[in-house]
Amino acid sequence: MASLKSRLEHSVTPTALRSYLAEFISTFLFVFAAVGATMSTRKMMPDAASDSSSLVVIAVANAFALSVAVYVAAGISGGHVNPAVTFGMAIGGHISTPMAIFYWISQTLGSVMACILLRVTTVGQHIPTHSIPHEMTGFGAAILEGVMTFALVYTVYAAADPRRGSMAAIGPLAIGLVAGANVLASGPFTGGSMNPSYSFGSALVGGSFKNQAVYWIGPLIGASIAGILYEHVIFPAEPEPDSLRGIAHGVGF
Amino acid sequence: MASLKSRLEHSVTPTALRSYLAEFISTFLFVFAAVGATMSTRKMMPDAASDSSSLVVIAVANAFALSVAVYVAAGISGGHVNPAVTFGMAIGGHISTPMAIFYWISQTLGSVMACILLRVTTVGQHIPTHSIPHEMTGFGAAILEGVMTFALVYTVYAAADPRRGSMAAIGPLAIGLVAGANVLASGPFTGGSMNPSYSFGSALVGGSFKNQAVYWIGPLIGASIAGILYEHVIFPAEPEPDSLRGIAHGVGF
Amino acid sequence: MASLKSRLEHSVTPTALRSYLAEFISTFLFVFAAVGATMSTRKMMPDAASDSSSLVVIAVANAFALSVAVYVAAGISGGHVNPAVTFGMAIGGHISTPMAIFYWISQTLGSVMACILLRVTTVGQHIPTHSIPHEMTGFGAAILEGVMTFALVYTVYAAADPRRGSMAAIGPLAIGLVAGANVLASGPFTGGSMNPSYSFGSALVGGSFKNQAVYWIGPLIGASIAGILYEHVIFPAEPEPDSLRGIAHGVGF
Amino acid sequence: MASLKSRLEHSVTPTALRSYLAEFISTFLFVFAAVGATMSTRKMMPDAASDSSSLVVIAVANAFALSVAVYVAAGISGGHVNPAVTFGMAIGGHISTPMAIFYWISQTLGSVMACILLRVTTVGQHIPTHSIPHEMTGFGAAILEGVMTFALVYTVYAAADPRRGSMAAIGPLAIGLVAGANVLASGPFTGGSMNPSYSFGSALVGGSFKNQAVYWIGPLIGASIAGILYEHVIFPAEPEPDSLRGIAHGVGF
Repeated sequence: MASLKSRLEHSVTPTALRSYLAEFISTFLFVFAAVGATMSTRKMMPDAASDSSSLVVIAVANAFALSVAVYVAAGISGGHVNPAVTFGMAIGGHISTPMAIFYWISQTLGSVMACILLRVTTVGQHIPTHSIPHEMTGFGAAILEGVMTFALVYTVYAAADPRRGSMAAIGPLAIGLVAGANVLASGPFTGGSMNPSYSFGSALVGGSFKNQAVYWIGPLIGASIAGILYEHVIFPAEPEPDSLRGIAHGVGF
Repeated sequence: MASLKSRLEHSVTPTALRSYLAEFISTFLFVFAAVGATMSTRKMMPDAASDSSSLVVIAVANAFALSVAVYVAAGISGGHVNPAVTFGMAIGGHISTPMAIFYWISQTLGSVMACILLRVTTVGQHIPTHSIPHEMTGFGAAILEGVMTFALVYTVYAAADPRRGSMAAIGPLAIGLVAGANVLASGPFTGGSMNPSYSFGSALVGGSFKNQAVYWIGPLIGASIAGILYEHVIFPAEPEPDSLRGIAHGVGF
Repeated sequence: MASLKSRLEHSVTPTALRSYLAEFISTFLFVFAAVGATMSTRKMMPDAASDSSSLVVIAVANAFALSVAVYVAAGISGGHVNPAVTFGMAIGGHISTPMAIFYWISQTLGSVMACILLRVTTVGQHIPTHSIPHEMTGFGAAILEGVMTFALVYTVYAAADPRRGSMAAIGPLAIGLVAGANVLASGPFTGGSMNPSYSFGSALVGGSFKNQAVYWIGPLIGASIAGILYEHVIFPAEPEPDSLRGIAHGVGF
Repeated sequence: MASLKSRLEHSVTPTALRSYLAEFISTFLFVFAAVGATMSTRKMMPDAASDSSSLVVIAVANAFALSVAVYVAAGISGGHVNPAVTFGMAIGGHISTPMAIFYWISQTLGSVMACILLRVTTVGQHIPTHSIPHEMTGFGAAILEGVMTFALVYTVYAAADPRRGSMAAIGPLAIGLVAGANVLASGPFTGGSMNPSYSFGSALVGGSFKNQAVYWIGPLIGASIAGILYEHVIFPAEPEPDSLRGIAHGVGF
């Protein structure tokens, strides 16, 4: 109990609060661009869903915005911007459970706020939600989302590895690029979310929770496996002093 | 009065004049590519405004050109390339008011010159201006532009943070990418300017100042909030010796 | 014989096994995105093969995913992700023959697994294979693939050069970008594989080995020439201590 | 006369010959991707010239391939890959006239060889040449090409500045991105060459020298102005020991 109290106290220090704000801002920035880009394609073309250039718009927005969202939060919150990443970091013991919960809340609030803002300002535009085509099963979609989130979280671990040396400089870019590549690979199949907050925020404001479970179960399992695999098999890390990094582990400087 | 005089003198030294020239060149380079790309799409396709690939052309041109414009001016002028960024830096006390005014003039001249050059050389092509669809309000558009400029200036602050270490290397890239992502998210809604000089230059040469206020009020307010938030809440900075940076703060090396 | 035995033992140490796993994961990640993106375009547009935006989808997926695949394996396996790269490194003496064989197996398994996963989850979608248009000869196609693989492996050598200094930071990015540029240049001609495992995995799961030889002979010859040329003519390297790099040479940190 | 002889001798040392080979390979690699991408769009779509996604294909190929071409030659030849860049460097005194001539020859041979290879292997495809629309004048087109080459060479100077610190790491990327942005801005107007060797090689193999002067006069004048301006006004450089760089100045490591 004392331990829980101490952990809770640790999770409301000014440094911790600052990292929640950083996660809120970065997730807002990311979801704004990702959802906004999808809305742009639909505003421009009624049949955006059957046009490859619309997929380019959405995937490039994901790649660019996630790179930046991670970049600006690196060294403050670790640049998770995604509950699945936070989960993968918690599995590996890099963030305490109370803090992870506050991260989830901040990320989800950021996503919801971005969707509300887009809906209100664009007047009459629908907020697009992640969905799967009729021939696919929820199980198959969850596997796809899980595999893509595995790749994302594996990249986060690789970018945050303290032994990465000069290549650490492009870590946020690598994280954005893997997200973009996966959106290109999965656009017409699952939409390429890899991020429960993103799917939840757009579902809440867009008004459809159909297949929502796909975007939570897949990513959380994929993230866990990535964390365990990188941590214990691929590149077992030595402990590093906490002072070198942000409040939680992740991409830092 | 003495202080004003000293500030004015400080703003016409060779180093200061060089930074105005750097801002002029970088804004010219950026607006040339951004406006030119929009003209390219219209030259190629009469219905460019309802084609997603045209949005890709414009957004990628914004992203690439802004990255480079910031890169080449980094360490000279701080790589603002945008009156909203200069305003956000002035709010945070990183550039004096007289210098900020010269920055605004240099940036706006660069934008106007780029538009004139494009108009003269391409013969008979119209200079495209930023505009909003009929169902949107100017207020909503200003909020969208403000939020996107917040993201841009927040990224500038993050990139210029002297504690960013090796990640400082990709700062100009992050600034370009956030601009590109925002253009993808807002193309058919506000055009995604985030830059009063860009909107003013194209409006002046294109001959339409409709909704011009949207592109000044939104960005300037968004930039101010970003500056105050990053400076005082997210990552309060310690003073650094001026000698490490260009004449004004911003992205340096 | 003793030497062969010692080499074989060297190739099943925990460090070596870890590098095979890293190659498996990175090749999986890369082929998943490259093949998935091709499937996305075909799912969206029946006539994807005659639409430039489909080529953008595929090339950008290749560029982004290969950058990340190399990035996450750098310093572990050297980030080959491609039997042609491993062959080019073996030619230059940077990896022993037994290890190179295990690399090939890991890469090919990763590719096959990615294609199986895509086929099973997307339900009823065909796995696209590399092919050449009827007017082209297999010989011409092999030359094209060989030249492009030359460029790729030459870039790998340049990125791995220990004297590259601060530019080593963007090595994985350069490797991804050259692949993306080559896909744009060769999409409707050869598909732009440059990677025998990628072509083999999609051919096996897609069920067509037509012109498969093109995607082995061309890349392997191109890779050899690149290795020999860079190693002996362009930039003859001095030996470096093995301890600075991963188990095999390649991109490291 | 002795001086000329010494300069000529200086230009045929092994190090000098290696840098000519590096320029040949890099220009080959760049022109292969740029011309190949244009051919891809025409193979896929008969009306590629009036489709924005074709412009994306071409511009992204230019950006990616030029980044890589500069990257792999950096520190060997300085990564010029373009007679206009070499000219701009010669104007600033960073390369001797005999060496500059060998650079021009190497670059032009690389471009011609890339076009021949594409023509032979793709069977029956036309090599596309740079051209201008009927309403534009050659004078206007030369100005456009000159302004864009100014931006390119200015970026090369900025990237090669020895005081750029950690940002030097992304120099080759910045050079590629400015080329890509300019192609997006000028595609349907001048084609966005900025490179006399590229225009010459495709004109020679494509069989049309119409408007060829545009692609020599504009770029060479733009490059000269960039060199003089950066060197003497924007950022006057102090001498650096030759041993830190390649045989000629340019992007190094």
